[in-house]
Amino acid sequence: MSERIWTAACVVIGDEILSGRTQDKNVAQLASWLNVQGIRLREVRIVPDVEAAIVEAVNALRARTDYLFTTGGIGPTHDDITVDAIAAALGVPAVVHPEARAVLAAYYETRGGLTDARLRMARVPEGADLIPNRMSGAPGIRWGNVFILAGVPHITAGMLDALTGTLEGGLPVLSRTVGAWVAESEIADLLRETEHAHPGVAIGSYPFFREGRVGANFVVRATEQTLVDTTIDALIEGLRAAGREPVDGGI
Amino acid sequence: MSERIWTAACVVIGDEILSGRTQDKNVAQLASWLNVQGIRLREVRIVPDVEAAIVEAVNALRARTDYLFTTGGIGPTHDDITVDAIAAALGVPAVVHPEARAVLAAYYETRGGLTDARLRMARVPEGADLIPNRMSGAPGIRWGNVFILAGVPHITAGMLDALTGTLEGGLPVLSRTVGAWVAESEIADLLRETEHAHPGVAIGSYPFFREGRVGANFVVRATEQTLVDTTIDALIEGLRAAGREPVDGGI
Repeated sequence: MSERIWTAACVVIGDEILSGRTQDKNVAQLASWLNVQGIRLREVRIVPDVEAAIVEAVNALRARTDYLFTTGGIGPTHDDITVDAIAAALGVPAVVHPEARAVLAAYYETRGGLTDARLRMARVPEGADLIPNRMSGAPGIRWGNVFILAGVPHITAGMLDALTGTLEGGLPVLSRTVGAWVAESEIADLLRETEHAHPGVAIGSYPFFREGRVGANFVVRATEQTLVDTTIDALIEGLRAAGREPVDGGI
Repeated sequence: MSERIWTAACVVIGDEILSGRTQDKNVAQLASWLNVQGIRLREVRIVPDVEAAIVEAVNALRARTDYLFTTGGIGPTHDDITVDAIAAALGVPAVVHPEARAVLAAYYETRGGLTDARLRMARVPEGADLIPNRMSGAPGIRWGNVFILAGVPHITAGMLDALTGTLEGGLPVLSRTVGAWVAESEIADLLRETEHAHPGVAIGSYPFFREGRVGANFVVRATEQTLVDTTIDALIEGLRAAGREPVDGGI
C-alpha cells in the first residue's frame, strides 16, 4: 500500500467571481473529481483577469503541489488572458497549436469560419498538449503539471471527464456522514476524543439551522473503509449515550 | 472625487470546501457586499483546516489589501482552529474576550450553560473587538484590518450586515449588462474596440449555452453611471449593426 499522497491546487481566474456576479461552481466539481482520482485539493486561489495576479498564483502553486488546475479565461474575447499569462508564468511564448487550429477550423466550418478572434483559442504555451473538449470547439491545455480548463462549468466537466484515469494518484479519501439534531457545542468532547482514538481519521463538524432547530452533520474521512466505519460506529454510540438519536448518512 | 481605490481579500477556511462536500457561498455574498461598500475584492484563497496554511494566507493577504476577511472555523469543535491560527499569524496570544464570554453566557443560559467547548467561541486574538452575531451566540472578531467571520452563510450575512457602513471605502463599482444570442467569438472585435474607446470601463464577456443555442452576456463596469450607460449604448448599437438583437439587462 502506497503512502504517497498526491496533491493539487487550483487557480480560478475571473473578475466575475470576485465581483460577486457569478457563483463559482468549478471548485466543488474539481474537488469531487480529484477525490475520485486519489488526489487531494490543497489550496484554491481566486484571482482577477490581471496578468501579474495570474502569474504569481500559478508560479506559487505549481511548485508546491503535484498538479495545478486553472479555470476560466480561455475564450476568444479581450478579457480572456489566461493563456498569455500562464505562458508568461512558464517562461515560454504563446503559440498556435496546429491540432487546436485544426479542431477549431472543423468546429467553425459550419459556424461562420475561423476568424482571428476564434483563432485566439488555438493558442497555447509552447510545448503544451491539448485536453479534448467534447462540448464546444476550444480545447483545454496541459503543460507539464499545469492543466488549463474552461470557466463554463459544463465545459470544465467535459474536460475533467476526458482526463479521468490519466493522472497518477493515491488512495481516494473515503467519507461517511452521521447527523444529529444537536448543538455541535454539546458534543464537542465526543468529536475530539473520537478523532483522537482513531489515528488516520479526520472528523469534520458542520452545523446547520433548519425547521427552527439546530443540528450538525459529522463527516468522517480516511483512506480505509474499515477505519471510517469503526469511527462512525463510535460516533453513533456516543450520540446515543448523549441522548441524541444519530441519523446515519446525515441529515 | 477621491481616486483612492479600497481593496479587500478573503481567506476561506475549511476542509469541507476543498473536499467538494460543501459549495462555498460566502465569496459571492462577501463580494456583493464589498461592492456596495465601495471596496474591491482582489483575491480569495481557500485553505484547509491546517494552522500553517491559514497563517501563510492571512499574513500574505493582510499586508497587501486594505481589509482581510476570513470565513469559517470559529465554532466550538476540535476542527475550528481559525482563532488560534490567526492569533499565531498576528503574533499575539488567543485570550478569552470578557464581552464575548458574557454574550455566550447569556445565549447559553437557557441552552445547557456555558461549557468549556462553548467557551472556546469567546476566544479572540488579544486586542480584538467583536462583531455582533444576530443569528446565534458566537460573535465575529475584528483585529486591525482582519475580520474573522463565521462559515455558515446566514450567520456570515448577519455579521456583514452589522459591519455595513462602518468600513471606509471608495466609489462603488457600478455595472450594467446587455445580452445577445450570439457566439462571443463573433463579436470579440466589437467588445475589445468598445472597451478601448471608453477609458475607465471594463467589459466582461460571459458565454452560455441554453435552449440549444449559444449566447453571451456582456457586463460593463465603471464607477461612473454615465460612462456605464454610454458604453452600453455603444454595445447595443454594435450588436444591432451585427444583426444580433441586444437584450438590455442580460439574458
